[in-house]
Amino acid sequence: MLNVLKKISLLFFLFFAFSHQSRSQHPVSFFTKEESLLVRSNLNTQPLLNESFQALKKETDFWLNKEVDVPLPKDPAGGYTHEKHKANYLLMFNSGVLYNITGEQKYADLVRNILLKYATLNPTLKNHPQATSTSPGRIFWQALNDANWMVYSGMAFDLVYNGLNEADRKIIEEGAFKPEVDFVTKDLSPWFNLIHNHAVWATAGVGMIGIATNNQTYIDLALEGTQHNGSSGFYALLDHLFSPDGYYTEGPYYTRYALLPFIIFSNALNNKYPSKNIFTYRNSILKKAINTAIQYSNTDGKFFAFNDAMKDKDYTTGEMVMALDIYTKAYGLDTTFLPIAKKQHNLLLTKSGIQLAEALNNPKNKSVVFPYKTIENTDGAKGNKGGVSILRSGEGKELTSLIYKYTSHGLSHGHYDKLNINLFDKGNEILQDYGAARFVGVEQKYGGRYLPENTGFATQTIAHNTMVVDETSHFNGNEKIAEQFWPVKNYSNFKNEKVLAISVSDSNAYKNVILKRSLFMLTLPDQPKLIIDIFHTQSSKTHQYDLPFYYLGQFIHSSVEYTYAKNTMYPLGQKNGYQYLWKEGEAKVIDATVQMTFLNERDFYTISTLVTDTASILFARIGANDQNFNLRRDPAFIIRKNSTSPSFISVIEVHGKYDPVNEVTSNANSIVQKIQELENSSLFSVVKITLKTGELIVVECKNDNSTTSNHQYRYNNTDLIWKGPYLILLNGKNINY
Amino acid sequence: MLNVLKKISLLFFLFFAFSHQSRSQHPVSFFTKEESLLVRSNLNTQPLLNESFQALKKETDFWLNKEVDVPLPKDPAGGYTHEKHKANYLLMFNSGVLYNITGEQKYADLVRNILLKYATLNPTLKNHPQATSTSPGRIFWQALNDANWMVYSGMAFDLVYNGLNEADRKIIEEGAFKPEVDFVTKDLSPWFNLIHNHAVWATAGVGMIGIATNNQTYIDLALEGTQHNGSSGFYALLDHLFSPDGYYTEGPYYTRYALLPFIIFSNALNNKYPSKNIFTYRNSILKKAINTAIQYSNTDGKFFAFNDAMKDKDYTTGEMVMALDIYTKAYGLDTTFLPIAKKQHNLLLTKSGIQLAEALNNPKNKSVVFPYKTIENTDGAKGNKGGVSILRSGEGKELTSLIYKYTSHGLSHGHYDKLNINLFDKGNEILQDYGAARFVGVEQKYGGRYLPENTGFATQTIAHNTMVVDETSHFNGNEKIAEQFWPVKNYSNFKNEKVLAISVSDSNAYKNVILKRSLFMLTLPDQPKLIIDIFHTQSSKTHQYDLPFYYLGQFIHSSVEYTYAKNTMYPLGQKNGYQYLWKEGEAKVIDATVQMTFLNERDFYTISTLVTDTASILFARIGANDQNFNLRRDPAFIIRKNSTSPSFISVIEVHGKYDPVNEVTSNANSIVQKIQELENSSLFSVVKITLKTGELIVVECKNDNSTTSNHQYRYNNTDLIWKGPYLILLNGKNINY
Repeated sequence: MLNVLKKISLLFFLFFAFSHQSRSQHPVSFFTKEESLLVRSNLNTQPLLNESFQALKKETDFWLNKEVDVPLPKDPAGGYTHEKHKANYLLMFNSGVLYNITGEQKYADLVRNILLKYATLNPTLKNHPQATSTSPGRIFWQALNDANWMVYSGMAFDLVYNGLNEADRKIIEEGAFKPEVDFVTKDLSPWFNLIHNHAVWATAGVGMIGIATNNQTYIDLALEGTQHNGSSGFYALLDHLFSPDGYYTEGPYYTRYALLPFIIFSNALNNKYPSKNIFTYRNSILKKAINTAIQYSNTDGKFFAFNDAMKDKDYTTGEMVMALDIYTKAYGLDTTFLPIAKKQHNLLLTKSGIQLAEALNNPKNKSVVFPYKTIENTDGAKGNKGGVSILRSGEGKELTSLIYKYTSHGLSHGHYDKLNINLFDKGNEILQDYGAARFVGVEQKYGGRYLPENTGFATQTIAHNTMVVDETSHFNGNEKIAEQFWPVKNYSNFKNEKVLAISVSDSNAYKNVILKRSLFMLTLPDQPKLIIDIFHTQSSKTHQYDLPFYYLGQFIHSSVEYTYAKNTMYPLGQKNGYQYLWKEGEAKVIDATVQMTFLNERDFYTISTLVTDTASILFARIGANDQNFNLRRDPAFIIRKNSTSPSFISVIEVHGKYDPVNEVTSNANSIVQKIQELENSSLFSVVKITLKTGELIVVECKNDNSTTSNHQYRYNNTDLIWKGPYLILLNGKNINY
Repeated sequence: MLNVLKKISLLFFLFFAFSHQSRSQHPVSFFTKEESLLVRSNLNTQPLLNESFQALKKETDFWLNKEVDVPLPKDPAGGYTHEKHKANYLLMFNSGVLYNITGEQKYADLVRNILLKYATLNPTLKNHPQATSTSPGRIFWQALNDANWMVYSGMAFDLVYNGLNEADRKIIEEGAFKPEVDFVTKDLSPWFNLIHNHAVWATAGVGMIGIATNNQTYIDLALEGTQHNGSSGFYALLDHLFSPDGYYTEGPYYTRYALLPFIIFSNALNNKYPSKNIFTYRNSILKKAINTAIQYSNTDGKFFAFNDAMKDKDYTTGEMVMALDIYTKAYGLDTTFLPIAKKQHNLLLTKSGIQLAEALNNPKNKSVVFPYKTIENTDGAKGNKGGVSILRSGEGKELTSLIYKYTSHGLSHGHYDKLNINLFDKGNEILQDYGAARFVGVEQKYGGRYLPENTGFATQTIAHNTMVVDETSHFNGNEKIAEQFWPVKNYSNFKNEKVLAISVSDSNAYKNVILKRSLFMLTLPDQPKLIIDIFHTQSSKTHQYDLPFYYLGQFIHSSVEYTYAKNTMYPLGQKNGYQYLWKEGEAKVIDATVQMTFLNERDFYTISTLVTDTASILFARIGANDQNFNLRRDPAFIIRKNSTSPSFISVIEVHGKYDPVNEVTSNANSIVQKIQELENSSLFSVVKITLKTGELIVVECKNDNSTTSNHQYRYNNTDLIWKGPYLILLNGKNINY
């Protein structure tokens, strides 16, 4: 009997314990009560933590005892109602955090009052009057922003759960949240089930509201999608949006954006269900994703702007502050991130925020430079859809980064830019990717949306530093087709950091044309850094091949005699982005090593390129037909060849110094004297580059990428013998090994 | 007898003492032996001083025991021989400084070896093969650089004087120095006697060699010119190149350059002849000049780039390091300069260098911002040739500076830009002066010389933010005529820093056209900063009036419907700089308040301008006919009116915030709703500006600039009564007093 009673009481205990945990433990979405108390007790000893707390408090206190407007949705991004609703969800979240740290009811009341207004507003909403996309929003012009609202409002509700009475909770759950959840999971279910960054936000939003309101149905919808068959939902998104090594398929700009709902919801999920081990899911895919995201930034913190991307976005954004915090919580402190945390100068008010604050105070951690390194990522959920390589040389301010992109299309934000390269040096963008044509949040610019020039120009192949055949974009600019193909890497070798090598081919961007681009980044002693760019084409018919270099900086000199657009200027073409380029100058060249030198800040850069037979050199500038001045007036240097299978062999050189303050210039001239193509057969490609300081020979095997095959080539009455797909000789000496 | 002996011995003593001082006291040009020993003893206690010492030592030690090349002059600026000779004189100077501080003979030997090579080279030289100017050089392409060489080599000789034997001294004096002195004082005597920055260098060079070699003839030549009649030479240059309040007539860029020989030679002269009191000469004109120079810089340290000027020149240049050091020596420590010394992070190895180092270490001197203020300078030796006013509002990063230029022409480096304005805000240039078209020291760009586009475009009126009548430049672009005239200030009033006012008229830039521009810079509570720009014209004939605004930033929006250059683009005109502008767009406007908003970094700026009757709005871009890509592709917004005496009434507004990192935009729209000209009679000009937040009325008296006259104007059935040349009402309230 005693035993039975014991059992029963144990069952009761378990029942209550479990029900308490699953039904009532709040907060749990952002942090737990214990964590919030730990933060409170550390405020006085951690100055940076306190600074972040005071900033949050100042912002939030401004609204205490004020009517917060919850306006009828009307304006596009940048407009009043858009910005207000955005400010509201952030305010609610912040106030919720403060409620737990300070224990003061007024912060809960602030959230309550706003959420009650949404509970009145939301049930009345139809599609937003400014909705233009296929996924219209209700509170905002697009559903994506509604999903943002759900994530933060959900967290806010959870954070002040214990400060609300049952009746208010019910009103808010039914009025503020249910219409939004129903809208995205029912009206917009195809969108909700997408494999796309929007869906990450949408599932995280629904899941967060589920956790906040103890609604298991919502949580399941979030994790599994509406079809519950593994094809959609949060897990499916973790499975499909990242490659196995953590590359996010839409590119670095959207990584940052998509990471936030991934980690913020994973954090909530982990707090509620630690046993789900979400942070180790798929071999700790989120750990890899965060590491990768940061490697895809310039030394100034800005994310590399390929695909649709705003160039001024850097790792000090709220998303990345959140990422570093939750990374620390999930995977432990990684001191290599401290230089980034230092630049962010903003900590979350969490346990890991305290950890970061302590680490930043520790004099041992004074290293001020994040260890950028040469890395290579695959693309695609299985890692079999091409990839990206970032070749790096130098350290700190002297870092040079060459980005070579041979990914899959990158969903709806992809550009038609197979085999594109971008160059960063000394913190500056040197050969640019245009990024996106958009002014996020600037109402006067098309409501802050993507501008027509984005598809018209920025996504087109001619807007990139890669080959355009016959003035048409890759895959004819058709996204559906582009999604099905990706380039194939022939080889890459980064063992010798002074001689980085990679080669990739593409045979799908154009029908019946094979493109192959091999890049060698050489850091030779006492020499300018050299990037050898061997771009082969192969076709059976004559085509017009255009290879642009979008250089940033002041044109200094070109070796060619060109005709400048004197009293009239015309666009370079009529379609596929060409209509947006003015033709400023043109040169006809026969058999020559053409050079063009430009100055970016205090460094000179020269592109030397071989012309065999004839070519045109075009000096173009963005801006033609740009009725609304939406595009930057940046220049391009374009090499045009009309032939069946021309080679484009170029050397990109980082040289010299211009010191305008002290008026001293050094090494303003290129060391490249001549480029020759000695052979381009089915077996070998052989290039000779004559420098002022010596001679470089690059031999590539055309049909054997094995790293173990032995090869032999006769040059200058000597038999060159080597192993692997390529050989680089400097003054007769193999410098690869 | 005893007395006689005493007298004789006294005479002997005096003779030796005097001869010792006048003939043999070395060093004296840069510092004295005592000073150098003081530096030595402070190296261990002053880290920044030691850092500067180590940097100097490292640079110099590299050349010890090496053959230093003294090549036959051949190349233009930026080329090898040019850069080498420049490096040589700096090396000799540095080595001379080190010789005294360390006492090590090797540094004297280094100077000796190089100077002996010059002693062989210089007597053989004819005019430089690249000489193109009317003042050809011998070691360099222009005599100016030879003068630089004389200043530094002279100092170097003096610094190692005691480490040379008599024979070497003689060889150097005769071989290295005499040919150069003879060349500039005899062959180039008209140039040597000019009132111009070149002559400052030339006189300082000859004088420095005089001091170094104890040659009184040279010193006299330097001080008095070759005619010895007060019309030329160093004193005459001090008299004529600065206004009484210290404005240097060529503008800030050349101030910095001309200041160096002024202060460096004054320092030497003062060391040798303290009784000449050169530093208090002309009411301490050099003190005023240095103070003024620094006020003419942006918060990032760059000098305002009006007249011929390179934009990247800032106050961290060697010249300004020297200026601050010698200022401190001559006038005592001024702690307001410490933020500048801190940014320079480079101290001279002198007694005042030690003083600055100590002051920088003192925690009391932690202020990090130089106190920029609203200032006004006259131009001309007597202060009667116009002037410049810099209207400032805000502090630190929020500083706004409006530069209003109404100087005389500014000698050969002047631009045709009467009544020009430039705007800086938050550290950025907002309404730009193009500066000079030149790449100093870049050989590929026309040998580093002024480019043809400098006279073709940069100096022309249309390259500035001021009025162009009938597509011709002021004074028809004739320097000789331009030199004879300057605008006349009507009034200015900076007593109320929230309402800064200035008005200037010009009746000479164009025959039979009077130009009058009044500017009011308003810093109203909780409002965007507003600059009211009332530009009146007066003529009896119809003219074409163009008022450009060279805005820097991204065009955001314009209220006008314009036609964009679609498939062809043409230059804006054929001559006087117009041929370098592309016409990107044009609008015909009737009776409207036209607005154009642009974004610079994170701030919005709007120009609102009144069109009464008709006007054209032109969207232009620099770059037409720019065969060698020498010009920046910057935009301009031009208001064109064809009429007899049109008014151009504009409001320039600093508003809003764009935060691309957090994607938040605020106040992106102008608060100006309407501009009206209520009256423009012979008595009054009355302008009404309707803001979202109220109404501004600006009444100006047309013919009475007295600050004491009483005026009355009937507006809105009320009699406005005020004293002085203008009245500004905000919502009916006089805000000026």
